[in-house]
Order: sequence, then C-alpha cells, then structure tokens
Amino acid sequence: MRVLVIGASGTIGKAIVAELAERHEVITAGTKTGDVQVDICNLDSIRAMYAQVTNLDAVVIASGKVHFGKLEEMTPELYAKGLDNKLMGQVNIVMEGIKHLNDKGSFTLTSGILNRDPIVLGSSAAMVNGALDGFVKHAAIELPRGLRINIVSPTVITEAMAGYAPFFRGYKPVAAAEAALAYSKSVEGAQTGQVYIVG
Amino acid sequence: MRVLVIGASGTIGKAIVAELAERHEVITAGTKTGDVQVDICNLDSIRAMYAQVTNLDAVVIASGKVHFGKLEEMTPELYAKGLDNKLMGQVNIVMEGIKHLNDKGSFTLTSGILNRDPIVLGSSAAMVNGALDGFVKHAAIELPRGLRINIVSPTVITEAMAGYAPFFRGYKPVAAAEAALAYSKSVEGAQTGQVYIVG
Repeated sequence: MRVLVIGASGTIGKAIVAELAERHEVITAGTKTGDVQVDICNLDSIRAMYAQVTNLDAVVIASGKVHFGKLEEMTPELYAKGLDNKLMGQVNIVMEGIKHLNDKGSFTLTSGILNRDPIVLGSSAAMVNGALDGFVKHAAIELPRGLRINIVSPTVITEAMAGYAPFFRGYKPVAAAEAALAYSKSVEGAQTGQVYIVG
Repeated sequence: MRVLVIGASGTIGKAIVAELAERHEVITAGTKTGDVQVDICNLDSIRAMYAQVTNLDAVVIASGKVHFGKLEEMTPELYAKGLDNKLMGQVNIVMEGIKHLNDKGSFTLTSGILNRDPIVLGSSAAMVNGALDGFVKHAAIELPRGLRINIVSPTVITEAMAGYAPFFRGYKPVAAAEAALAYSKSVEGAQTGQVYIVG
C-alpha cells in the first residue's frame, strides 16, 4: 500500500512510520519536515498536498494542537485554536481525501484519552477528542467507494512523559510502538467507524 | 431553586419547564420567546442575559442547531454552523455562567444520540454531540464553588417524529416528558460530569 503519514516526525508519528514502513510505501508529511509539507489548518495547503501525493491507499494523521489552560481562563478564541487545528484540520484532511484516495482506502485519525479520563487544563482537548470520535463513528456510514475510517485514542505516551508527567500523575503510559499497532490495525485491517482506545 | 431554561419553547424545553415548574421558579429564555431573549451564538447576548437574570441556581440548555447534509457535501462553513451554535453556544453559556451562578449551582446541557448511533446526513451532529459530551465530562473536574455540570443525550423525541421519522427509521423514540426527567435528575440531584443517555 501507499500510505501518507501526516505528523510523521512526532512521537507517535515516528513509531507509526517504523511500524508501517516494514511492509508499505510510506510518504511522510509535516509542517516543516517530511516528504511533503502541509499546514493542516489551511485548506489550500491540504489541497496542494493531495495534488502532490497521489495514488494513496491510506492516510494516517498523528497531528493536531489544542490549547491547554485553566477552565476559567479559556475563551472562545482559545477553544477555536483546537477546533481549527486538531478538529477541523483532521476533518478537512478527510473531506478532501474522499476525492483522492484509492477505492477501499482508509483514513486513520488521532484523538486521545482526555474526553474519557480528563485532567486539569484539558477542556479543549476533551472537547476536540469527543468531536473527533463522534465524527469518525459517523463518517464510516457515509464514506463512498468502500473507504474506511477509524480513530486512535491513546493515553499519554511513554516517550512524552518527560514533559507530560506532571499533568498525568497516575496515568499508565504506553510506548509509542504500542500505540502504533492501533494505526496498523486500522490501515491493514478491514474495520471502519472504530475508536481504538490504547492504554 | 431559581432555574433558567434556555430553549424553553422547544419540544424538549417545554417538557423540562413542565417538569421543573412544579417545584421551582423557572425563568424561560429563547431567541424570540420567553421571559428573556438570547442569541446563543452571540457572546454579548449571553452576557446581557446573565445581567438581566440573576441569582440563578441552575441553567438548563435545550437549544442548539447543526447543519444536516450529506457527508460529501459538507464544507468547513457548514461544520462551523454547528460548532458556533450548538457547541460553542452551550459552552459560552457555561463559561459566562461560571461567573454568575450561585454556589453549588448546576449547568445541564443537551447533546443527542448521533455521536453514539449515527444516521445518514448527521456528521455535524455527531461531531458536535461528541464535543459536548467530552467538554462536560471535563468541565466537572475544574468548575469552582461546587458548581456542577451534566449533559442529557436523548434519542429522537416522540413529539418530533412527525418530521424526523424518515431520518430515524428503527429508532425507538422517547417522550419529551421522559427526556425531561434526566434534566430534573441533573438539576435536583448531586451528580456531576455525567452524560445522561435517554433512550
């Protein structure tokens, strides 16, 4: 398969590439690195990416930013950051990709644990992850041409604990390589509309 | 208690008012009807509502619009309608309400079945409902002064089946009065961070 991995230089992205590159042709994408550059907040940039990278069997997205902040200090503008980037960035990659992926191709998105098991400062993450899980569950029933879609919802990643540990006390991390298995299941399996909880 | 019901003239809103008015002082709000008018998409309008209606023990929101349309015909602008109205409308009512509700007051929001059990045309509803469920689960852990928050996620309502039946074949509707019980549980109980699934 030809697989595009967006966010390939990130902690999870690198593990996904390592897992999939053993068996597939992987094209990497990132804001500044990779085989192709893309700004997921910019629809024209997403369109340019699909014009450049064709004949795709799978798109994996391990990218998306939200603002972390105290609930009482959140504003509509701070929520918009997560809605524009992690939510609509991933949704727009799907919506544009519908026109470009090969028949029976797949999308694999990334949400996260915080809408299921919240931490202080994470209200935007909880909102955006919930939106993504709902969108994916829905999109599976309307995608044309046998296209599939799943989402991986990992807990905190071991390799990220150096920075994240103070915010995730008591959370059992999982290695990026273990999270990458869920992406492999989505890309190489046949399921659709699934939220793969990791950890 | 003094309870503000936003969307009080709607199918569910009327049933909520009927349930709560037996035991509480209910103030009704709507875009054009009710004791106070509010445009939930307009932050200034929300602020004006809280300036007008004070000394509140509970805010109930049974209001929120999303665009229904085929997945392949959805656009960022059509998704923005639901994000601006049903999602951020309710979120902004909470965020502003934090400054105004009485100690130990409660917020009760409304999502719906479509992020759990999708129907064709409902991708925006699935997205927005998931976002709301995640936000509420989160907000409960950060709300100050003993404030509580829950959300009611009803299936299709019996009284709305005249228009909705073709879109909800096979769905067992619940009467608005039954959905209203979940709002009563949220307002009059002590739980927080709960998604009350009705139907």
